[in-house]
Formats: sequence, structure tokens, C-alpha cells
Amino acid sequence: MKKLLIIDFPFAGPFGNDLANKLDVLAQKIKDEPGFIWKVWTEDPEAKRSGGVYLFESEESCLVYLHKHLERLSTIVEKEEVKYYLRDLNDDLNKISFIS
Amino acid sequence: MKKLLIIDFPFAGPFGNDLANKLDVLAQKIKDEPGFIWKVWTEDPEAKRSGGVYLFESEESCLVYLHKHLERLSTIVEKEEVKYYLRDLNDDLNKISFIS
Repeated sequence: MKKLLIIDFPFAGPFGNDLANKLDVLAQKIKDEPGFIWKVWTEDPEAKRSGGVYLFESEESCLVYLHKHLERLSTIVEKEEVKYYLRDLNDDLNKISFIS
Repeated sequence: MKKLLIIDFPFAGPFGNDLANKLDVLAQKIKDEPGFIWKVWTEDPEAKRSGGVYLFESEESCLVYLHKHLERLSTIVEKEEVKYYLRDLNDDLNKISFIS
């Protein structure tokens, strides 16, 4: 069963294009993670937050990635500051409201 | 500028197909909301949570919808139990990792 990972954390920047220039290689690498389907990169430059919404093929692949992501973040964010949760998708309702 | 709304709240159910049968009309109605682009319906039947990730054309249309959604939820969930936040998308990074 597919799994959605929603994550958000304090982030001093950069944002927008500046972040994209810095992380384009990472963004490409993430696509090769086992079970990765897509990621929406989210940010709030005013509130100084960054994060993402990820879709994985399975809970297992999602949790493997989450572990890697938390490790990578641990150098710049306190563990308890990283907010995340996993959710199932409601496939029937998403057929109505989500791009297929 | 497009805006992402991430929302999550306690929910006793139903979930899955049962929820879809109950809310298919609402799901169709939501698509007609001004500025609505898409919604991913999220749920966790074990943790008894429900929610969504929405994309709107603008912050304004997102906030109008959010207000409606919170009103609708107020009959079944305590206001302070509804967790939500708005975020910008990083368009350059999403060109790499999100379905276009």
C-alpha cells in the first residue's frame, strides 16, 4: 500500500531558486530512492520552514527513506524540531480530486 | 503564487471505500471551489486521523477554502485539534521530483 510522508522543519534558507541551485543534485538522487514515486518540495521563507510531501510505493520504502532524511537533517535541525507523519491515501476519493 | 494547504485532524471514521461512498458528492463539490487545483485525501485508520494535502491557485483562494473547511469540521472536531499549515511550492525542485 502506497504511503504519504509529510515532513516540515525549521530552515534558515535558502529558498526558491537559490535552494534549487544548491539541491538539484540531491533532488535527482531522491528520485532513485527505492519506492519513491514523487515529492512536492514545500517552503515558507517568512516562517523559515522547509519540508515536503512524498509518495512512496510502500510503508517500508517510506520508512527507509525517512530514516535517511532524518539522519541528513540531524546536522542542521534538532531531532524534536522535525515534524512528520505518515498517512494512507484514500484512492477512491483521490480518483475524483487528484491528478491521475 | 500557488499555495499548498496541509491539514490533519482526529477522525473516528469511516475510512477507505466507506468514506468514499459517504463523501463522493463533497469530493466533487470541492473541485468546484475557486482556485482549487487538486487534493490528496489522507487517512490513518489505526491512529484515527483524516486530512488532506490541497493545491490552490493562490493564497487567497486557499484561505477562503480553509475557512469553509474549518467551519465544516467544527461540528465534529474541536478547533484546536485541527492541525494545518500553508506552504509555498519550490517550483524548480518540483520540476525534478513531482509529476507535472
